[in-house]
Amino acid sequence: MSICPLEFRYGSNEMRKVFDRDNMLRKMIDVEIALLKALEECGLADKTNYSDIAECSREISYEEVDRIEREIGHDIMAILEAIDRRCGSKSRYIHYGATSNDIIDTAWALTLREALSIVREKLVRLIERLKKIALEHRDTLMVGRTHGQHALPITLGFKAANYIYEFSRSLERVIEAEKRIVRGKMAGAVGTMAGWRGRGLCVEEKTLSHLGLEPHTIATQVAPRDGYAELVSIMAILGSQIERLALEIRELMRPEIAELSEGVGERVGSSTMPQKANPVQSEKISGLARVLRGMVVASLENIPLWHERDLSNSSSERIIIPHTMLLIDEIVGTMIRVLDGLKIFPDRMRANLESSRGHVLAEALMLKLTDKGINRQRAHSIVMRISRRAMELNRSLLEEALRDDEVRSILTEDELKKVFSYTDYLGNYRELIDRAVKYAESMIERSVGKSQ
Amino acid sequence: MSICPLEFRYGSNEMRKVFDRDNMLRKMIDVEIALLKALEECGLADKTNYSDIAECSREISYEEVDRIEREIGHDIMAILEAIDRRCGSKSRYIHYGATSNDIIDTAWALTLREALSIVREKLVRLIERLKKIALEHRDTLMVGRTHGQHALPITLGFKAANYIYEFSRSLERVIEAEKRIVRGKMAGAVGTMAGWRGRGLCVEEKTLSHLGLEPHTIATQVAPRDGYAELVSIMAILGSQIERLALEIRELMRPEIAELSEGVGERVGSSTMPQKANPVQSEKISGLARVLRGMVVASLENIPLWHERDLSNSSSERIIIPHTMLLIDEIVGTMIRVLDGLKIFPDRMRANLESSRGHVLAEALMLKLTDKGINRQRAHSIVMRISRRAMELNRSLLEEALRDDEVRSILTEDELKKVFSYTDYLGNYRELIDRAVKYAESMIERSVGKSQ
Amino acid sequence: MSICPLEFRYGSNEMRKVFDRDNMLRKMIDVEIALLKALEECGLADKTNYSDIAECSREISYEEVDRIEREIGHDIMAILEAIDRRCGSKSRYIHYGATSNDIIDTAWALTLREALSIVREKLVRLIERLKKIALEHRDTLMVGRTHGQHALPITLGFKAANYIYEFSRSLERVIEAEKRIVRGKMAGAVGTMAGWRGRGLCVEEKTLSHLGLEPHTIATQVAPRDGYAELVSIMAILGSQIERLALEIRELMRPEIAELSEGVGERVGSSTMPQKANPVQSEKISGLARVLRGMVVASLENIPLWHERDLSNSSSERIIIPHTMLLIDEIVGTMIRVLDGLKIFPDRMRANLESSRGHVLAEALMLKLTDKGINRQRAHSIVMRISRRAMELNRSLLEEALRDDEVRSILTEDELKKVFSYTDYLGNYRELIDRAVKYAESMIERSVGKSQ
Amino acid sequence: MSICPLEFRYGSNEMRKVFDRDNMLRKMIDVEIALLKALEECGLADKTNYSDIAECSREISYEEVDRIEREIGHDIMAILEAIDRRCGSKSRYIHYGATSNDIIDTAWALTLREALSIVREKLVRLIERLKKIALEHRDTLMVGRTHGQHALPITLGFKAANYIYEFSRSLERVIEAEKRIVRGKMAGAVGTMAGWRGRGLCVEEKTLSHLGLEPHTIATQVAPRDGYAELVSIMAILGSQIERLALEIRELMRPEIAELSEGVGERVGSSTMPQKANPVQSEKISGLARVLRGMVVASLENIPLWHERDLSNSSSERIIIPHTMLLIDEIVGTMIRVLDGLKIFPDRMRANLESSRGHVLAEALMLKLTDKGINRQRAHSIVMRISRRAMELNRSLLEEALRDDEVRSILTEDELKKVFSYTDYLGNYRELIDRAVKYAESMIERSVGKSQ
Repeated sequence: MSICPLEFRYGSNEMRKVFDRDNMLRKMIDVEIALLKALEECGLADKTNYSDIAECSREISYEEVDRIEREIGHDIMAILEAIDRRCGSKSRYIHYGATSNDIIDTAWALTLREALSIVREKLVRLIERLKKIALEHRDTLMVGRTHGQHALPITLGFKAANYIYEFSRSLERVIEAEKRIVRGKMAGAVGTMAGWRGRGLCVEEKTLSHLGLEPHTIATQVAPRDGYAELVSIMAILGSQIERLALEIRELMRPEIAELSEGVGERVGSSTMPQKANPVQSEKISGLARVLRGMVVASLENIPLWHERDLSNSSSERIIIPHTMLLIDEIVGTMIRVLDGLKIFPDRMRANLESSRGHVLAEALMLKLTDKGINRQRAHSIVMRISRRAMELNRSLLEEALRDDEVRSILTEDELKKVFSYTDYLGNYRELIDRAVKYAESMIERSVGKSQ
Repeated sequence: MSICPLEFRYGSNEMRKVFDRDNMLRKMIDVEIALLKALEECGLADKTNYSDIAECSREISYEEVDRIEREIGHDIMAILEAIDRRCGSKSRYIHYGATSNDIIDTAWALTLREALSIVREKLVRLIERLKKIALEHRDTLMVGRTHGQHALPITLGFKAANYIYEFSRSLERVIEAEKRIVRGKMAGAVGTMAGWRGRGLCVEEKTLSHLGLEPHTIATQVAPRDGYAELVSIMAILGSQIERLALEIRELMRPEIAELSEGVGERVGSSTMPQKANPVQSEKISGLARVLRGMVVASLENIPLWHERDLSNSSSERIIIPHTMLLIDEIVGTMIRVLDGLKIFPDRMRANLESSRGHVLAEALMLKLTDKGINRQRAHSIVMRISRRAMELNRSLLEEALRDDEVRSILTEDELKKVFSYTDYLGNYRELIDRAVKYAESMIERSVGKSQ
Repeated sequence: MSICPLEFRYGSNEMRKVFDRDNMLRKMIDVEIALLKALEECGLADKTNYSDIAECSREISYEEVDRIEREIGHDIMAILEAIDRRCGSKSRYIHYGATSNDIIDTAWALTLREALSIVREKLVRLIERLKKIALEHRDTLMVGRTHGQHALPITLGFKAANYIYEFSRSLERVIEAEKRIVRGKMAGAVGTMAGWRGRGLCVEEKTLSHLGLEPHTIATQVAPRDGYAELVSIMAILGSQIERLALEIRELMRPEIAELSEGVGERVGSSTMPQKANPVQSEKISGLARVLRGMVVASLENIPLWHERDLSNSSSERIIIPHTMLLIDEIVGTMIRVLDGLKIFPDRMRANLESSRGHVLAEALMLKLTDKGINRQRAHSIVMRISRRAMELNRSLLEEALRDDEVRSILTEDELKKVFSYTDYLGNYRELIDRAVKYAESMIERSVGKSQ
Repeated sequence: MSICPLEFRYGSNEMRKVFDRDNMLRKMIDVEIALLKALEECGLADKTNYSDIAECSREISYEEVDRIEREIGHDIMAILEAIDRRCGSKSRYIHYGATSNDIIDTAWALTLREALSIVREKLVRLIERLKKIALEHRDTLMVGRTHGQHALPITLGFKAANYIYEFSRSLERVIEAEKRIVRGKMAGAVGTMAGWRGRGLCVEEKTLSHLGLEPHTIATQVAPRDGYAELVSIMAILGSQIERLALEIRELMRPEIAELSEGVGERVGSSTMPQKANPVQSEKISGLARVLRGMVVASLENIPLWHERDLSNSSSERIIIPHTMLLIDEIVGTMIRVLDGLKIFPDRMRANLESSRGHVLAEALMLKLTDKGINRQRAHSIVMRISRRAMELNRSLLEEALRDDEVRSILTEDELKKVFSYTDYLGNYRELIDRAVKYAESMIERSVGKSQ
């Protein structure tokens, strides 16, 4: 069967491998073996030859586990049974004192550590791509748009720097949340460590240090579910941010605007309209971001479990955790490819900026009038009046201002002309780009430090 | 790769087959062939031997289509290309005048017709199971609970009848919504049917009647997306209703209550607590219902597409439509199995009812006082007073009432004793059960009529 | 205090009055009085003078009820207490045999009947506005856009007709769902009608017929919550559809496109950019639709209540039901106003259509080639080739086609020129507009019939 | 009008004051005045007497602003106009170079700083309440429940410590996220600071330091919306965690369990069932948590704004930000009150623990067998067998174990009896409680440090 597009269409192989059932099974066996070591180290089990057990359990496949699960109706017990059948008495102490979710939650921690490392690494690459654009197009003039309407001049580099900042905030969020998300749980059936005869803290410490994990401070049968809800929330935030950039590209690729274009290469645009070249990669991102947002709902509902846990989180998480990570993986990965192929048209940017014939500098005119002694509120109403008249009569704002008696009583022709310079009205864009890049670099450094 | 549990763990094979890529591909080819026939019938194409094309395209696999898609970047064009490569000039008019979403949306209609038929059929089975319980346990006394607290006596049959009503409302909803969801779209690239030289209405009518579908009244490049949002919404409503029954079972299986039990057979309850028998099937339903609710969010966001459509719904729907249908399929199917194995303990029901020592009949006492001339509000406060005292002193409500001077000045001992009969305080439960069953039967009849 | 914008900023006064606490209180008293009448008619209460009770309870304010609720901690009991204090023994049988949610759910039915009538009436007005545009601009040429890219010619009337269809589907949905949503519940503390000594069906029938309502077939302490979830879902669907139109306007008002404009009148566009004229009404709709979608989540979670009910739906519904109805009311009302003031620029539509220099007729060329004997797939690749070359060289598609040897070997110059006519490539748009209008009219008729 | 329950029913007055329109208006005027100071300090404006402006704008009410807004259709311009009308030429430079969202986003930062401080302070109080329970009931035995079924013994203190840990994780999250949420934005119409003639960094730095805020690194017309989405997400996580505790109380207050009880005092439980004492406060929390989760959806959708911003976030945030904060405020506040009045019944805890007649120590028996040389898997199957038989025959697990030949061949009667001690099977609960308390204390310290 082939149904879920995350298995064959969306997501990288790298991420798919992390959440493939085979990797999950391997991780669970790794946890069982780490526990066996710890049991011995803490004096709860006889000497065991771990490499033997690693060896005899190596060939266990999830198909085999599935078969046993169908007999006995319990997934972790099926793994233990498979180990038992293959390893026999060597695995006598397997799972001693542990509960299924000691294994499952700790295995989630291991897979999520891998998955988050992939996300962080790709996010860094995405930020680097944007940095390149920000620096190369630091001074490429274009119009800033608010409400879809022309507002004031900006540069493409400045626009890119905003995305750098936003994505770096997500990177910061991932880095900070990771300590709450990637934690092992090794505390037995209700969290008291009762099965380990008083040596539970030892077992926990040893098991998790073999796996390179910190433990949860306390737990019930399961690790607290707020960690997974935080994971899904921040991935949905990141996905929505990247959707913002996707939307930017889709809009700026409209033929009436034509400032950017997804490079389409030989790609067919439409089955019936041969002329079409569509922003399909960016549109795909928009669609997947919606699915990702929907995952948050389920992740939040998983928090209020009964007492020392009920099972309702389990079926839900089997779906939402891998889906969330594959969705974000596809979203980030696609955006990297889109930026790699992105075509930029500075001439069109300039033309669009100029198309309003100076109206995007109305603020500059208003402030100039204020500087000359007019109340800012009054200046606003003067400029609003002449701007609307100019648009009606299809004149440039300068032209209309020059014809306006009230304005002319305050500003000379020369002063007026000086107002209408795009490049002089870009404010502190250069410093702001630098600030964004600097912030991004500090986050990238933290992220790289984490992965090493 | 094996990642998404809907491919191997949740959902029936029957439903999986509907959304398997192979079935989707077959459906799309069916639509193309129906269009070819229509083109000929409407005089837009030369005579074609459809069985030839059906023949030469039969072996096309999605792997083959995938390979072509990787070259040209367009899924429907890849199918056309595959047909072209295999059928050559026989398929000269393939896709003439159509756009990709004429094929995709019409194929969705075909698969959803199959999928909804499965859902309706299973829902009918579920209602039948409940009807059996309602009739067999029409008079099985138990306590009605509000806020988790004992309220008034009911019967198990009455409880079941409420679920019958609720699920039948969903059945009604599915039946009524189906005409908005299962509709073909055959109208070309922007919905005007421009490619068919004025004979578009003929092409639409013929194509869809070959497939047994009604058309959308008008469309853009795509069918309006509110239909899919309605689909996902009503499936999420149904899933949440079944979760209500799952929650009922989970609660009534608590050892302190023990009125119902998921039959566990030889199933292992816990990897470390051998005594455990857990309501794992019902808990699974709770978890999956959460994921289902999250799908609604994405389905609603797919509605506001740009102009004559943008592509953002596409990636989203590839995931949420099959996932929604497989989730509801697993939820309904699991509940049928749970009811099949359900153990019912009338003795425990009786014992729990009686455990409050008559407090669940406090209303009856209050109304009796009202009948005797006391203001209802005053009677409420009298009974509240003696009830709280009785609880404090661990007496039955009758005992306390008999000791109370105010009550005794109004009611004789004999009158009081008559008040405290559980079976006399069940109201019109029998007629209400009958009403629910009758309503269910009328919906089942409509559903069966639809499927024939 | 003044915090929630739905109290002062969004929503009509008409709708606000429906959900004002005062109206809710009146409705609840109405239900209590209808019940009193029914109790007498069914022989359960002595003759009562209802006009007396209506009279003595007329002045009860929610402030008064609030004060009592703070003493006793129960909202409905506080109303009963207020009636008791003012009416004394006249109200002796008030609430006899009823439970709080008999009153609350029936009062919700009464308010929702009012609220849905407002929504339907406004939705009809909205559809009428669109009908006017569809008919006036039936032939106003513009470009159809898919993926934000130019696709094929359409007319503004055709575009409007699609919205007519989509909104009429919502009208149909509301009409059909109303019978599940607007139903009274009068069945006592656990739904068995136990308090009415076997005459419960009489009490239910009489009470609800005084209020003009049909009963739920069966109930627990409360009406089943799927009705409210369906209400919120279909309102969210409608809100998302209207958002689609809002988005259309926002996009077509971009200065580079400028085909439509929200009339801004004297409205200030920006506090600092005097030139700005922004689509703020349409943007408001987009924002509110998001909030509305979020309400669905809570409404679905309210379905799985415990046993014969728990209280968790109560606090949730106090918020989401009024908020949902006020949000949709503001969304529909705003869109009516936007359409009333909408400016349409047919010249710009024409100019944009022509700006691609014939590329939007690439499909027509491809089909012409197919008619002449070329395989459709082959024709697609020919036209794709010349279209991309034409764009590169900034030529019209006709120009490039005329230069292309392969095309010229198939089509004469004359034939080619005939292909490039916008008005000849509009397909069956007129009949489709008519179909949409006809469907809308049948829904409007059903809606008006309902309200009378 | 009185519609939204957050205005009169839910939320503290303290929090309501923060989001009252009057406070929002004051905050916005504060920002305008801070900007005026900064303009002067940076040499962009003449000397101004701020206290004069503070004085003349003090009396501006939102009713006044509303009236002006109705004329000119812009909220911030209406405030400026009101200031202008009252202060005249004194306010000549008001809003110079700023855009509306410089004021709005910075005012949000100021209100959210207040609101988060309230949340943190209440959350600390909630944790302190739980700490008291954890320490007082450190050794109060009760049964741990998984799947609603009896699992192993725990103590009430251990249960409380888990909530301490979970809530402290939320406190950590709030503390860490606050730096991303509470930031000022002062950068002009598209974020370039163009209006301040190169001195934008000075204006930003001065304005925000007057208000005690750090700036966003870079911005468009608005601060990036991921901050608000993170805010709503982590509040929804916290709300869901508290719902978990509410659910715990609701369940443990069932009469069949009766281990905890919301103190109901003189509260009426039901309008018709005088005996009822219901967990209505905890149920209210469950209901409000659902509404809160729904807010997340809207907050995420607000992230992908167009270009340098569109307005769609505005209407949405006016609703979701105050509603989110009032909802969480009511949820935390209610839980504090619930804990203050909570009744704890250690006898019932003990009785329920013992009711399973030793089955909750099945794990202990299994591990004992393992210690004696039996494979753990084999031991599991032995104990599962005797446990199920014991339940069937209604025997204690010890009794059945003593009768079992296989067990008796391994363990002596004496050894067996030693296994069945509840207090000996609590593992490291004391150290784990201490760990949770210690972690909580370190978070409380960080939180208190922040507020000073």
